[in-house]
Amino acid sequence: MTQIIANIGILTCSDRASAGVYEDISGKAIIDTLGEYLYSSWKPHYHVVSDDQASIEEMLKYLADDVGCSLIVTTGGTGPALRDVTPEATEAVCEKMLPGFGEQMRAVSLKYVPTAILSRQTAGVRGKCLIVNLPGKPKSIRECLDAVFPAVPYCIDLIGGAYLTANEDVIKVFRPK
Amino acid sequence: MTQIIANIGILTCSDRASAGVYEDISGKAIIDTLGEYLYSSWKPHYHVVSDDQASIEEMLKYLADDVGCSLIVTTGGTGPALRDVTPEATEAVCEKMLPGFGEQMRAVSLKYVPTAILSRQTAGVRGKCLIVNLPGKPKSIRECLDAVFPAVPYCIDLIGGAYLTANEDVIKVFRPK
Amino acid sequence: MTQIIANIGILTCSDRASAGVYEDISGKAIIDTLGEYLYSSWKPHYHVVSDDQASIEEMLKYLADDVGCSLIVTTGGTGPALRDVTPEATEAVCEKMLPGFGEQMRAVSLKYVPTAILSRQTAGVRGKCLIVNLPGKPKSIRECLDAVFPAVPYCIDLIGGAYLTANEDVIKVFRPK
Repeated sequence: MTQIIANIGILTCSDRASAGVYEDISGKAIIDTLGEYLYSSWKPHYHVVSDDQASIEEMLKYLADDVGCSLIVTTGGTGPALRDVTPEATEAVCEKMLPGFGEQMRAVSLKYVPTAILSRQTAGVRGKCLIVNLPGKPKSIRECLDAVFPAVPYCIDLIGGAYLTANEDVIKVFRPK
Repeated sequence: MTQIIANIGILTCSDRASAGVYEDISGKAIIDTLGEYLYSSWKPHYHVVSDDQASIEEMLKYLADDVGCSLIVTTGGTGPALRDVTPEATEAVCEKMLPGFGEQMRAVSLKYVPTAILSRQTAGVRGKCLIVNLPGKPKSIRECLDAVFPAVPYCIDLIGGAYLTANEDVIKVFRPK
Repeated sequence: MTQIIANIGILTCSDRASAGVYEDISGKAIIDTLGEYLYSSWKPHYHVVSDDQASIEEMLKYLADDVGCSLIVTTGGTGPALRDVTPEATEAVCEKMLPGFGEQMRAVSLKYVPTAILSRQTAGVRGKCLIVNLPGKPKSIRECLDAVFPAVPYCIDLIGGAYLTANEDVIKVFRPK
């Protein structure tokens, strides 16, 4: 099999991080976690945008269509506040929504905090790219990724993206026969 | 901190209750339960409407925009029958939906009855007001409110509504630091 | 009570099965399972269509409106791939969606495979007909039907369809008093 390098987008949606008010820890936590998970070659494409729906949509389209990402993981903007619009931006650019991702991440987060029900995170497919929203809090990143990543490589297979393999001692991914 | 009185809407959606065919027990059960939960001052705004989508939407808008409610709790109209339109009315007046509320209430109700999957209840945000649908059956009111209320005060903080505090010996609300 | 024969549609959505590339096992598994479940008289209306949204919508409308089905169970086309459009077709022909069905089926399937979150299956109501999506894999058919069927007869009661009774030694259906 010819090994190709998978392009993966990491998109932090945060007014404060994009304005330089504070350092983006969550986006870097996603890159670190994916680095631990993935055995196959990949290249991160990391961006920070403000909580502006049009800007988020534009960046998601750029990463999916122009960069050719097979996966985009967002962080931030999933709460109920006025400026939280990442799920809306995601839905606007996706042809298909995958409600099971949000359900499963909320179910897992509920084991830690009852406010997990406030997270509106979702996932969807744009062309050959899977887009997954994670919450903004750094400590939720790993628990949410651990909960859904086992299904991510097979999902990307189904939509025609790059073939991802994982470090089996870190996370077990699943491909039905 | 200046204590302000929180306005809370209680809206019973029922053809029969609005026509006086039977007494509305569920709406009163919500008022009683909130009375037990809340330590901070609040004022109930209680209304009964028929299962008519336009009437429900109008009342939700009145309670959120004119009365200035930080929270509206509905009961009834969440099933699959033709006249059950409360979730549709809620979605029509909200800028943001919070699917985690419905997921969690159905998950809890499923421990009691397999028909919990028929309930289409949801929650959403209109301006500075959180709207939560509860099912119509009186005995489901408490189990559903117990399941989601711990996240309600923090949600209302995030959307700029009144600051609610609870009687900690009745229910533990959660605000992340 | 006058016993009437319930019409039940079974719709396999599959490019390959409709082209005769392989035999449809899942549709037949649904018929067999319903045959074990149901005590009251029923008549299956079994069809196979390609993964084409317009064709699926047309067949769902035919089964609901012309045949007078009280229940339609689909199989296939619920994944994230380009040609998977059964949930979209279902949503397009239904007046009301019942998200609890998809949530519960995914929660049950997650006990077996982490890729259950990729299934986008849902359920909804068109007139007096309940439409339920099942995944395409034969071995998931029974676990998903077992998970939601206890609520199906009562749902059909609420929308004015046929009165279904079940073999209580096979599956326990629930009707609240």
